[in-house]
Amino acid sequence: MLNFSYFAPTKVVFGKGAEVETANLLKEFGAKRVLVHYGTGSVVKSGLLDKITECLEDAGIYYVKLGGAVPNPRLSLVYEGIKLAKEEKIDFILAVGGGSAIDSAKGIGYGVANDGDVWDFYEGKRKAKACLPVGVVLTLSATGSEMSSSSVITKEEGWLKRGYNSDLSRPKFAVMNPELTMTLPDYQTACGCADICMHTMERYFTNNPGLDLTDALAEGLLKTVMKNALILVKDPKNYDARAEVMWAGSLSHNGLTGLGNDGGDWMTHKMEHEIGGLFDVAHGAGLAAIWGSWARYVYKECLPRFKKYAVNVMGIENKGTDEEIAIKGIEATEDFFRKIKMPTNLNELGIKATDEDLHTMARKCAEGVGGAKGAAKLLKEEDMYRIYKASAGE
Amino acid sequence: MLNFSYFAPTKVVFGKGAEVETANLLKEFGAKRVLVHYGTGSVVKSGLLDKITECLEDAGIYYVKLGGAVPNPRLSLVYEGIKLAKEEKIDFILAVGGGSAIDSAKGIGYGVANDGDVWDFYEGKRKAKACLPVGVVLTLSATGSEMSSSSVITKEEGWLKRGYNSDLSRPKFAVMNPELTMTLPDYQTACGCADICMHTMERYFTNNPGLDLTDALAEGLLKTVMKNALILVKDPKNYDARAEVMWAGSLSHNGLTGLGNDGGDWMTHKMEHEIGGLFDVAHGAGLAAIWGSWARYVYKECLPRFKKYAVNVMGIENKGTDEEIAIKGIEATEDFFRKIKMPTNLNELGIKATDEDLHTMARKCAEGVGGAKGAAKLLKEEDMYRIYKASAGE
Repeated sequence: MLNFSYFAPTKVVFGKGAEVETANLLKEFGAKRVLVHYGTGSVVKSGLLDKITECLEDAGIYYVKLGGAVPNPRLSLVYEGIKLAKEEKIDFILAVGGGSAIDSAKGIGYGVANDGDVWDFYEGKRKAKACLPVGVVLTLSATGSEMSSSSVITKEEGWLKRGYNSDLSRPKFAVMNPELTMTLPDYQTACGCADICMHTMERYFTNNPGLDLTDALAEGLLKTVMKNALILVKDPKNYDARAEVMWAGSLSHNGLTGLGNDGGDWMTHKMEHEIGGLFDVAHGAGLAAIWGSWARYVYKECLPRFKKYAVNVMGIENKGTDEEIAIKGIEATEDFFRKIKMPTNLNELGIKATDEDLHTMARKCAEGVGGAKGAAKLLKEEDMYRIYKASAGE
Repeated sequence: MLNFSYFAPTKVVFGKGAEVETANLLKEFGAKRVLVHYGTGSVVKSGLLDKITECLEDAGIYYVKLGGAVPNPRLSLVYEGIKLAKEEKIDFILAVGGGSAIDSAKGIGYGVANDGDVWDFYEGKRKAKACLPVGVVLTLSATGSEMSSSSVITKEEGWLKRGYNSDLSRPKFAVMNPELTMTLPDYQTACGCADICMHTMERYFTNNPGLDLTDALAEGLLKTVMKNALILVKDPKNYDARAEVMWAGSLSHNGLTGLGNDGGDWMTHKMEHEIGGLFDVAHGAGLAAIWGSWARYVYKECLPRFKKYAVNVMGIENKGTDEEIAIKGIEATEDFFRKIKMPTNLNELGIKATDEDLHTMARKCAEGVGGAKGAAKLLKEEDMYRIYKASAGE
């Protein structure tokens, strides 16, 4: 096993009614002037935003509001938030929503706490030295951004979708009430489940043996998410299933499920980022749509892990050749995606990509990863193109 | 599932040579005047203490040393540390060692940061409002104190062994190099493995259904520890096995394996505390010695969990009545303890307890828990006496 570090300092308050703790948590972490950052529709419509701001008023905490975070959150809004936060001398950002609001909040946090253009961090030009503290009231189980070091921002000019990871941006606290996810459309719930699975699968598929314990946690988490995602297809208001998925979402991406290996593969995410950048699809659906083609392209070079996954997670019988078992595990995963109504290729995702589009995505993806990337199999631009093409059914 | 909170902010640096990061971590967390607190023998003999203090000198960090922490760490040393730390205007405590040095360091941390007698916290008379920051260089995988909120101190007068839990004392960082545990006697390694298992088992055996995810993590952790504890019996220098056990030790007690249930049972720990208080035995061995008698006394009132444990952790075939399966799981656990040379009753622990001793322990235990405690089955003094008696073979 390889050396590792683990740092997941986010204070989690989890369960029914947990959002009433928001003002107490803000005070505990020293917030005096808060930027409340949120999305476009549901947190306003549901009354959650008013409930939160009332709590802040009752507690005598000064705040300003900034809405407008959208899926694949935009750099222009991050710039707007930085300007507003500086004018208002904001010392804490409270994201109310899902990954979009949180990632956007982290981007604003970097921008306020560092000089120069915040996009530099996302482009990999330099590293942030600080980040304004961020807290979260979570309304969507998916990106795990509520405990993670990562944020992903899209630059409208050229539709560049780029991620930046730093422990500096790990939220100080996360308030998680599974009830708040009950009003989500089923499609978004399923997208979230796909994303959660993928955060652990990206870490799992490597050629490093890693740790027994890490694998056991990863496998347990994947089985839990899949079981409960299926429950939610039939019974979307099931509180316990929503709770399982919500907590799994945080643990899946806080680092825990990849410790002791080589950092994971991450090519499904990288390739989806280009789909999301060009076509603006839901992230989780994009991941599900590309994963099968990726898996079939790489599995022979990562056979022990694909076999272990098939047996321990997907319940495939340990019979036949390793390749047969691995393929059955991939098929079972695609079956799972279909059962939760996720796409398993670009056509099912509703994308009509031209061959030029596929080449563009492969080129941008290769550029984004500095030429080649992948722990299950090292992928270059040509490999990426082939995977996109397989997913497009061409 | 019940609401929960989770807060495990300790920054972990894990792997070969990790201890060289100690001075950097101290600086990162703002330490200027450090109390280096350690035990009696091995960290001095092995040269680790000199290595650490040299790092501090090279980094220009002022420090004073205080050794002498022993298993079941003593209140008198805590008082001595508080006095020294106040005189020296210490702002950070670095524990070098295992649970004894860490728990003692936490006790000193409470004592320095609060007025009045530090024993008040351990007696449950009042709550600490602060704690001096603590960092850890871990040399023994067992108590999980390096990431946990708990510390256990023994007051020599009356041999009272009492624990106090507060998030305030969770270490800021923990440096974990599995190589540092290789010089341990096999008996201590096995005691550590028993303790690690028990931290998760105490959380697992309750009558609350909890979370699928929590159970999956708990079961994965237990299987990992048992597998690698057996490897270490035959191959004590196996780095990977030591790494598995070390990381499991931290996760077993940082809260993760009990989230969403009712806080766990903890009666094996409480009953062992009285054995340890009266006879000064190794904590892990004491736990192993009492667990079987506890389990046989309570399992019928916590049958679903004992059955699940038997099947999912101990690999018992799901055949026969629930009671039969549960008993097979208990027997398999005792077999595991025997294989790692842990005692399964008080005689094997080397204790000749008189009937008066058994009554004394039961009385002190009942007093310590405020009359009755237990989530698998609520135990009163009479129940505790019967379990002690069963373990004494009477």
